[in-house]
Amino acid sequence: MRAGPSQEEIRRQNLGALLRFVHVRGQISRAELTSELGLNRSTIGALTAELAAVGLVSEEAPRETGRAGRPSLVVRASSELIYAYAASVGVDRISAARIGLGGVIMDRREAERPAEDVVTPLREFIESMEASVGPGARCIGAGVAVCGLVRREDGVVRLGPHLGWLDQPVGEALAEKLPDLLPSVVVGNVADLSALAEHTRGSAQGCSNIIYVYSDVGIGAGIIAGGRRVTGHGGYGGEVGHMVVNPNGRPCGCGSRGCWETEIGEESLLRHAGRSGQLGRDAVLAVVDAAARGDAEAQAAVRHVGDWLGFGVANLVNIFNPELVVFGGTLRDVYLASAAQVRSRLNHNALAACREHVRLRTPQLGDDAALLGAAELAFEQLLADPLA
Amino acid sequence: MRAGPSQEEIRRQNLGALLRFVHVRGQISRAELTSELGLNRSTIGALTAELAAVGLVSEEAPRETGRAGRPSLVVRASSELIYAYAASVGVDRISAARIGLGGVIMDRREAERPAEDVVTPLREFIESMEASVGPGARCIGAGVAVCGLVRREDGVVRLGPHLGWLDQPVGEALAEKLPDLLPSVVVGNVADLSALAEHTRGSAQGCSNIIYVYSDVGIGAGIIAGGRRVTGHGGYGGEVGHMVVNPNGRPCGCGSRGCWETEIGEESLLRHAGRSGQLGRDAVLAVVDAAARGDAEAQAAVRHVGDWLGFGVANLVNIFNPELVVFGGTLRDVYLASAAQVRSRLNHNALAACREHVRLRTPQLGDDAALLGAAELAFEQLLADPLA
Repeated sequence: MRAGPSQEEIRRQNLGALLRFVHVRGQISRAELTSELGLNRSTIGALTAELAAVGLVSEEAPRETGRAGRPSLVVRASSELIYAYAASVGVDRISAARIGLGGVIMDRREAERPAEDVVTPLREFIESMEASVGPGARCIGAGVAVCGLVRREDGVVRLGPHLGWLDQPVGEALAEKLPDLLPSVVVGNVADLSALAEHTRGSAQGCSNIIYVYSDVGIGAGIIAGGRRVTGHGGYGGEVGHMVVNPNGRPCGCGSRGCWETEIGEESLLRHAGRSGQLGRDAVLAVVDAAARGDAEAQAAVRHVGDWLGFGVANLVNIFNPELVVFGGTLRDVYLASAAQVRSRLNHNALAACREHVRLRTPQLGDDAALLGAAELAFEQLLADPLA
Repeated sequence: MRAGPSQEEIRRQNLGALLRFVHVRGQISRAELTSELGLNRSTIGALTAELAAVGLVSEEAPRETGRAGRPSLVVRASSELIYAYAASVGVDRISAARIGLGGVIMDRREAERPAEDVVTPLREFIESMEASVGPGARCIGAGVAVCGLVRREDGVVRLGPHLGWLDQPVGEALAEKLPDLLPSVVVGNVADLSALAEHTRGSAQGCSNIIYVYSDVGIGAGIIAGGRRVTGHGGYGGEVGHMVVNPNGRPCGCGSRGCWETEIGEESLLRHAGRSGQLGRDAVLAVVDAAARGDAEAQAAVRHVGDWLGFGVANLVNIFNPELVVFGGTLRDVYLASAAQVRSRLNHNALAACREHVRLRTPQLGDDAALLGAAELAFEQLLADPLA
C-alpha cells in the first residue's frame, strides 16, 4: 500500500530496470530496450548515457547487421569494470570467484575446505584475484553461499550441521579481514542462491515457480514462487531435507526420524550400495557409475534413493505446483540415473493438476550456480539504485 | 524489470493505495493517511476528493477529540454504496453474502449444499439480497470460494473430490445467470481465500509468512510467503492434504497412500473415536466435546489426530519458516483440543531455527473468512485502479 513514487524515484527505478535488463540479458540493443522497457528512445538514450558516464555500461556499434539504415547501438554491462566477489562454502570444498556485472566469471579459485577457519583461505583467494584486476575497475561488494541455515537479518550462519558450524558470522569475519575492499559481505544459503542463479541466468530462466533441490551431504531447496524467493520469516525456509517422509525411518542428525535427508542423502545412497565407510561427492558419483556399468548393488541403491527422491518431490509438487524442479549438487547425477523412479513416484503420489506441467531438469550452471547466486546478492543493491 | 510508471500511472497507483488503505483499515484520518502513504496533505486531499466524487469513500468530521485545533477529516470506505457478492461452496453447506467495500458483511444467506446444482440456489441468494439494496449502491463483482482445485487461468474447478466435481465452470455459470448484475465472477480455493481474508483483516494481519491449514472433510492450505499468496503455476498450490506423511498408512481417495488427509481428516478422527459411520462438522465437534468431557476413546482419537497434525505442521514449518500457523474449519476445534500434542510434535520434528518464532493460532474471522476472502478477490481490480 505504498504511495506512488516521485519523479526522482522514477528516474532511479528506470536506471535500475535498464541496468538489470542489461545485467541479465548480456548485451541488448537500444531498440530492444525501448520496446522491452516501454520507454521512448530519448529516455533510453538519456538513461544509458547516465549509466555509461559512471562506467556501469558501455555502448558500441553492433556488428554488421545486413539491414539497411543506421543500426541501433548495443548496450553491454561493464563486466571488466564492475565486479563482485563471490564465495561458496561446501562440505568438502570452498571456492571463490570474481564475477563481473552481467554474471561473467572473470577469475576463480577452489580448494578443499579446511577443518577450521575458512575465512583466511577465502581472504587469500580474494587478495590473489584482486592482484590481477585491471586499472579503473571497481568492486561493489561480496556474497557468500553456505550450506547451512542463514539468518536473513544479519547473515549469521545459525547452524551448518555438516560444517560443524553454530552461530558463525562468516560474512562479518570476511569483511573485517578486507575492510578497504569489502565494506560489507552478504550471506545466503547455497540452495537458495543456486536457485536464484538458475532463475536469473540458468535452467529456470523465465519460470516463476521453481523448486531447486540441492544435495551436498545434506539436502536443501531453493524455492521461487510467483517469481520471488521463498525464504521465510527468519530466512530459514527451504529446509526440505527435514521434511519427514518415513516416520519409521532412521534417526536424523536434527533429532527427528525419517527425514527426507535420511533417505536421499549421500549417506543413504552409500549405505544401500554397501559402501558405508565412504563419503563425499566422488563416492556418490562412483555409485552412479557402478550402477551404469551394471553393478546390481549400486543399481538397487540408486533405485531406492530415486524412489524416495520422487516421493519427496511429489510432496513438494502438491504443496507448490511448480513448473520446474531442478536437481542440483550430487542429486543431479542421482536424478539422471533414476529419472524413471522419480517420474513414476511423482505420477503416483502427486495430484494430476499439480504435476501435469512440471518439468524435471538438471542445472545449467553446474557448480558455478552457488557463486553466481552469491554474486547476485552482492549486485542487488547496485541494481536497485545504480547511482546511489 | 518493468520501467518506472508515467505521471498518470502514478496518480492511479496513489488512488489505489489510498483506497486500499481505507478498505483494509476501516476509517482513518487524513493526517494518518498523509503519514502512512508518505504523500503531502494537499495530494491526500486531492486523491480523497477524486475517490469521494465517484462514491468510493466519504469524509466526515471526527467525533470530539478533546484536542485543540481543527481535527483532521476522517475518510471511510463507502460500504453501503460499493459492494461485492461473495459465495462459498463447502462440502455440507453453501453460503453467500453481500460485502461492502471495507470488508463489511451487509447481508448473508446460508443453506445445506444441494447434491446437484449449487448455481441456482446461489443465484437465488444473490437475487434476494439484491432486492434490499438501497438506492445508488453499486455492485462491483463477485467471488466464489470452493473446496477444490481451481485453475487460475479461467476459474474452472478442476477437481472437487469431496463435492464430486470435475471441470466445473461455477463462476462462469453464475455470471451467466445474472448477466446484468455480475459481468464476471472470480473463483478461488477456500483455504487460499480464507488465508487471504485472515491476512487482510484477521488473525494474520501484519504477518508476511503464514500457513492457514483448513479442514472441511479434506485438508488444504492457504500459504502466504513474503506477503504474497503462493498459488503455484496453475493455481493448484497448497494441496498439503496430499503430502504423504505415512507411507504405510491408509489409501487416500487421490490414489496415493498415507496422505496427511488420511491421518488428520474428519474420517480419521471419527474412525479413531469409534464413530466410523458418522460424517460432517457436527460429528467432528461431538468428538471434541466428548473428549473434553472425559470420553477415553474420543480423547485417544483427538490425541492421534493432534499428533499427526503437529507432524505435518512441522514439515511445513521446515519448508516455509512461517511466523504464524492458523487452524481453520474443523481443524480449529481439533487443534484447540490437542494443542499440547501439536506443539510437542512441532518441537520434536522441526528445526529450532525454523520453528522458534512460530505462533499457532485460531482464525479471527471464523466461517466468514471464505466469504471475506472471495470478496477480496472481487474487490482486487477496483483497488488496483479505482477509477478504471
